[in-house]
Amino acid sequence: MTIALDAMGGDKAPDAVVAGANIARKRHPEVRFVFFGDAKLIEPRLRRFKSLAKVARVVNAPEVVAADARPSQVVRTGRDTSMWKAVEAVRDGAADGVVSAGNTGALMAAAMFTLRTLPDIDRPAIAGFMPSLRGETVLLDLGANVKCDARNLVQFAVMGEVYCRTLLGAQEPKVALLNVGTEETKGNEILKEAAEILAAADLPVTFCGFVEGDDITAGTVDVIVTDGFTGNVALKTVEGAAKLIGQYIRQSFRSSLMAGIGYLFARRAFAKMRRRTDPRRYNGAMLLGLNGICVKSHGGTDALGFATAIGVAVDMVRNDANELIAEHLGKVDLGPTRGSEPAIKVASS
Amino acid sequence: MTIALDAMGGDKAPDAVVAGANIARKRHPEVRFVFFGDAKLIEPRLRRFKSLAKVARVVNAPEVVAADARPSQVVRTGRDTSMWKAVEAVRDGAADGVVSAGNTGALMAAAMFTLRTLPDIDRPAIAGFMPSLRGETVLLDLGANVKCDARNLVQFAVMGEVYCRTLLGAQEPKVALLNVGTEETKGNEILKEAAEILAAADLPVTFCGFVEGDDITAGTVDVIVTDGFTGNVALKTVEGAAKLIGQYIRQSFRSSLMAGIGYLFARRAFAKMRRRTDPRRYNGAMLLGLNGICVKSHGGTDALGFATAIGVAVDMVRNDANELIAEHLGKVDLGPTRGSEPAIKVASS
Repeated sequence: MTIALDAMGGDKAPDAVVAGANIARKRHPEVRFVFFGDAKLIEPRLRRFKSLAKVARVVNAPEVVAADARPSQVVRTGRDTSMWKAVEAVRDGAADGVVSAGNTGALMAAAMFTLRTLPDIDRPAIAGFMPSLRGETVLLDLGANVKCDARNLVQFAVMGEVYCRTLLGAQEPKVALLNVGTEETKGNEILKEAAEILAAADLPVTFCGFVEGDDITAGTVDVIVTDGFTGNVALKTVEGAAKLIGQYIRQSFRSSLMAGIGYLFARRAFAKMRRRTDPRRYNGAMLLGLNGICVKSHGGTDALGFATAIGVAVDMVRNDANELIAEHLGKVDLGPTRGSEPAIKVASS
Repeated sequence: MTIALDAMGGDKAPDAVVAGANIARKRHPEVRFVFFGDAKLIEPRLRRFKSLAKVARVVNAPEVVAADARPSQVVRTGRDTSMWKAVEAVRDGAADGVVSAGNTGALMAAAMFTLRTLPDIDRPAIAGFMPSLRGETVLLDLGANVKCDARNLVQFAVMGEVYCRTLLGAQEPKVALLNVGTEETKGNEILKEAAEILAAADLPVTFCGFVEGDDITAGTVDVIVTDGFTGNVALKTVEGAAKLIGQYIRQSFRSSLMAGIGYLFARRAFAKMRRRTDPRRYNGAMLLGLNGICVKSHGGTDALGFATAIGVAVDMVRNDANELIAEHLGKVDLGPTRGSEPAIKVASS
């Protein structure tokens, strides 16, 4: 298996990408890597990791997609960038999957343009997972589609179900639509229509109806489907709440001598909790619905986080996730697809 | 000042309502209370609080709005319920404001039907506040309007700004729209149109553009405006995340003997943090945009939480919040209002 890496994407590129690949190499010894980026920057870094260098090659593509570049701009003028070249490697069969920590919108545009969408898919979606009281919850769309219709949501449900099976090993993942109440009468017409289609008995999805915002972290179901606007807000709201409470915990331990002594006793337990909730453990959002495995790493992550994102790509390739998605989508008759123009509006992440 | 109380609304009614009023009485000695509900249940409870009984009277209205009643059903058949009668007291001038911990949709319907909306308001909104890294953030709409147009959002911004001034004492509160990115190009057409109107120089709002989900708890701005779908999801997502991390903290302290000893030292500091983040301190969502002060308490709260909700109503009455809202809205020319049919779809809370 070969994974293409955009060595120039993300705040800490190329260091985090090269060092991240080295961590991933130890976890997945069967994987080979192709780095796309400025060879002058990548090669000296690669020399530090001799075992990695043996399973890696470098393709010189020094142009970088700017963090604030618009997707349309990248489609027009970004064909020589490290990101575009890395995605092309998947299309050309030179790699089985690609990982980039660069601009989300640009990556989605490059992937849609280069890899194209799967048959029966109107629009791809971005899926991620986060910790819950019962384990982990998959949430999608995280921002690829600001507006979605019922067809989109149904397709997201089918894809999210496969993503959850593949990545988290869930047997029959429970899938629900995010809403403002659990009763059938709640929400808008799009949600009601999507719920009706998903409730049809012959779909390859265990559909559980509507859930609410607090169900994301409660782990009521395994997969929560929503449009890219709400999903992006929900994801960032969880991140923000975690940051606030983390600050409260630090302030509490620092608020008195007694609390400081308490910290000395409890710090190992809290370090364990920090490791468990470490965002780097939940890094690697999957661009679902494309003719190829494409994973978006958080732009600010380090080597450890990037290694997790590589792991997501490896899991998806190894388990033939896209074949399973195509097979499951084939069972859903929603009529002809509505084309696959590149996603121009992608939320930042 | 007189506050009408729906003594039958909420999971712990009437106990939490009567005991909550007794706490509020100590905080606001100038306030008188009228309890609407089953006199046979209220009067014996009132006898336990002699000082409260002196400033309270009871209006017998034993009918209760069911927790799962549809708003339309309440409008048709709920005119004799404790909730409806309590709201009517505000319309009739017998009370200056009303507080209910009952069914949110029913309360909104009763309030819209009875009190009517303020001039220049298309739709009322539900506003609440929550802790942030910098203090407190006002968020609206929390679920009154699943779908909103640009006019609605602009009106919410003006009302939320006054709510923030009145309740949190902010001098020139910063107001922003919730979006999936901070750039002007992000989001849908409705958000872009609302941002354009709000950016006009002559509005009584300090508009700061777009913010993202993590800004709610970061406290980047004082007031965050969104539609009732996204607002409801965001609010519950924060609640869910807080619950998850609270669980992690408990697990950490229980995970080893050392951590348990640490807890003995740190528990006072953590109790302080719990008090600071106590949802009861943030109870009392305001139904903004009505011809009268109407506050919704969380249905599951206790006496302390209900007293906070009464405090919100008292603050809004004392500071003539509705006069200020009407004045500010008068400065916003959005053309004629679009009627004020009762809000039938209100998210649960």
